[in-house]
Order: sequence, then C-alpha cells, then structure tokens
Amino acid sequence: MRVAVLGGTGSFGGALAKRLAAAGEQVVIGSRDAGRAHAAAAEIGGRAAGAANEDAVEGVDLAVLAVKADGALETARAVANALGGTPLLSVASVIEFRKGVGMLPDRDPRSLAERIQDVVAAPVAAGLHSIAAVSLDEEPPDEDALVCGDDARAKEAALELAAKVVAGRALDAGPLASARALEGLTAVIVNLNRRYKAHAGIRVTGVA
Amino acid sequence: MRVAVLGGTGSFGGALAKRLAAAGEQVVIGSRDAGRAHAAAAEIGGRAAGAANEDAVEGVDLAVLAVKADGALETARAVANALGGTPLLSVASVIEFRKGVGMLPDRDPRSLAERIQDVVAAPVAAGLHSIAAVSLDEEPPDEDALVCGDDARAKEAALELAAKVVAGRALDAGPLASARALEGLTAVIVNLNRRYKAHAGIRVTGVA
Repeated sequence: MRVAVLGGTGSFGGALAKRLAAAGEQVVIGSRDAGRAHAAAAEIGGRAAGAANEDAVEGVDLAVLAVKADGALETARAVANALGGTPLLSVASVIEFRKGVGMLPDRDPRSLAERIQDVVAAPVAAGLHSIAAVSLDEEPPDEDALVCGDDARAKEAALELAAKVVAGRALDAGPLASARALEGLTAVIVNLNRRYKAHAGIRVTGVA
Repeated sequence: MRVAVLGGTGSFGGALAKRLAAAGEQVVIGSRDAGRAHAAAAEIGGRAAGAANEDAVEGVDLAVLAVKADGALETARAVANALGGTPLLSVASVIEFRKGVGMLPDRDPRSLAERIQDVVAAPVAAGLHSIAAVSLDEEPPDEDALVCGDDARAKEAALELAAKVVAGRALDAGPLASARALEGLTAVIVNLNRRYKAHAGIRVTGVA
C-alpha cells in the first residue's frame, strides 16, 4: 500500500508514518514545506519519501490528512486538484478547551470530515480518532480503530490502513456522518487521560 | 442507593431497573401511567416499586431519564418541579436512520443532555449510551460505562450507579458537553451491530 501522510511532520502524522513504514508500507510524507518533509522521511529511513503536500499524493492508494484540525480544510483545498479521485482519510478532530471544565467536542453540527468532503472531489473516509500519537510509537497499540465513510472504496482503503496501525481490529462504524461521534471521542479520550493520568484508547466488545 | 428509572417500562429502562434491583438497589419504576409502572415493578419483584414519573422521583438519590429521546425533554419538564435538586442522569441518544446509509448521530450541535439541563434546575449527568438493553439482561456486561457532567455531585451519583450496572469500570468522561460524543456513540454502536451482526459495547484501554 502506498500512502501519503499529509502533515507527516506533525506529532500524529509523524507517528503514523513511522508505524506504517515499520509495517512495510511505502510512505510519502507530505508537508507545506518540502524540505521539512524530506527531513522527516530521512529520519524514518528505508523506503519513506518526502514531498510537498501536492506532490506527495501523486500515485498513492490513500492520502491521510493528518494536519491539525485548524489547518485541515486549507490543506484539503490545496491538494484537491492533485488528489483527483484518490481516497482521503480524515483523522483530525476539533476540540475546544475550557479552563476548569476540560475538553469539549466541536460545536459544529457537521464533522470536520463532512466539511472536508465539501471541498474535495475525492471520496473521504474518517477514522483513527481514538488513537494517540504516543500509542503508535513503539508497536501497534492494543486498541481497535474505528473508520467511517459513505464511499465504499475509500472506506475499504481506510480500513486496510487502520488494520496495519493497531493490534486490534479495524471496524466499519458506518456512514461519514459517524465522524461526528468519532471526532467527539477525541475530546472524551483527552478528558479520560487527564482525569486518570492515562493513555486511553478504545476496544469494541461483543464483535466477534 | 435509591434510584428512580423514568421510562422504566421501556426496553432500556426496564433492563436497567432489573439490573439495579438484581444488584440490591432500591428501584422505583416511573411511567406516565402509574398502572404500567406498578405492573413493571411487580414483574421485577423484591423491593422494586412503581409510580407515576412525578411521584417516582420522591426521595431518591438519583433519577435516570430512560424514556426514548423523542420524549425525553417532555418528561424532564414534567418532573422538573418534583425533582427539585435531585441529580438526573440522561441516557438517551437521538439517532437518525437514513435508508441505505445507516444510523446517523444527531445533527443538533448540543447534546440531548445539555438540552435537558436547560429545562430542569436539577443537576444533569449523562452516560451509559454505549450499553444496550439486551446486554443488561443476564448479568453485568463486560463493558465500561462512560459518564459525564458539569456538576460533581450528579456525576458522582451517576458513576456510582454505572459501576453497579457493568462488570467493567465506570469512567468520568469530563464535562456535560462530552455527551455530544457519548450520545453519538449510540449511532456508531448500532452501525457496528448491523455491520457485524454483533452486540457491540465499549472498553477503554490504557486506563489502570
């Protein structure tokens, strides 16, 4: 599987790229700054490559939009043309911090992933929201990865990638609108981490 | 712990009341129809009692609002006076079904629990959204229960109740706004159940 990780110089994107490379996948790290992308790829080594975001998506099976939530729409717009019909996986979540209260899920009634689908022709899937960068560092975490999407091909590619990232299962959580809940889970997990001094993740019970 | 289960004649409320009674708690089943509440309590037996919703909340430590989402606000308004400052636990989720697509989380940017807080003076907590009625039937399910709230006393009471319902842990997921994500999880779980012919639940990993 050839995968572009846009925002692969960030903490989650970098950890994901490293994990995928360790799983034997061909990774192209994308960044607004091609130089930083090359440096991040060199650090991973092996077959990992680096390129400007628009060039990174060239010829990949799946592009992961791993830039932070506040830059996700802008980056999606920037790569829309280069992407064409290549599936795009949205992994970011909007979180609001309120002092003394904790982390709050986004107030927007539509998920970031749905808003990203508005600005690209490529089919968008969403997932991996419950997985922390730090959990990817050493080995595939003992967690499940939830993925959703309206386009069967994009969701299939996202599930294939997710299965390589976690030791648990990659599970199909339904339509792209499920991203409202999956993105909201990130705030829940950060709250759990703060409350219990933990690195929380999700396992789905009852699914054989 | 003395607990009122409003909507205790419904499938989730009934299963919850039965589970709490089996755990030795004193349960008062509430219904709009006192006769139906009495009948449901008689079916559970033991110390379980039945009453009209407004009477059921009298002298309890916690009231669970277990009516379906479309009746939740109306029932909350109806019991608001009788409730006074007694903590209220919201467990319902709004789910939209779209044919050929599956279950969608609510489009309302605010959770049902936050909207319930608008119509009662009592402090509101939310939780148990990932637990299915059928999972409560035989014994405490091997799942965790996530609870959230802005009021410490209401959240504490809700966590205490949740710990009696599941074999896993009752976990504090942060402020009441976390209910946006927790309620959305119900749609995700129903999608997982349909996709994998399962009875899905949630376990949080990485929390000691």
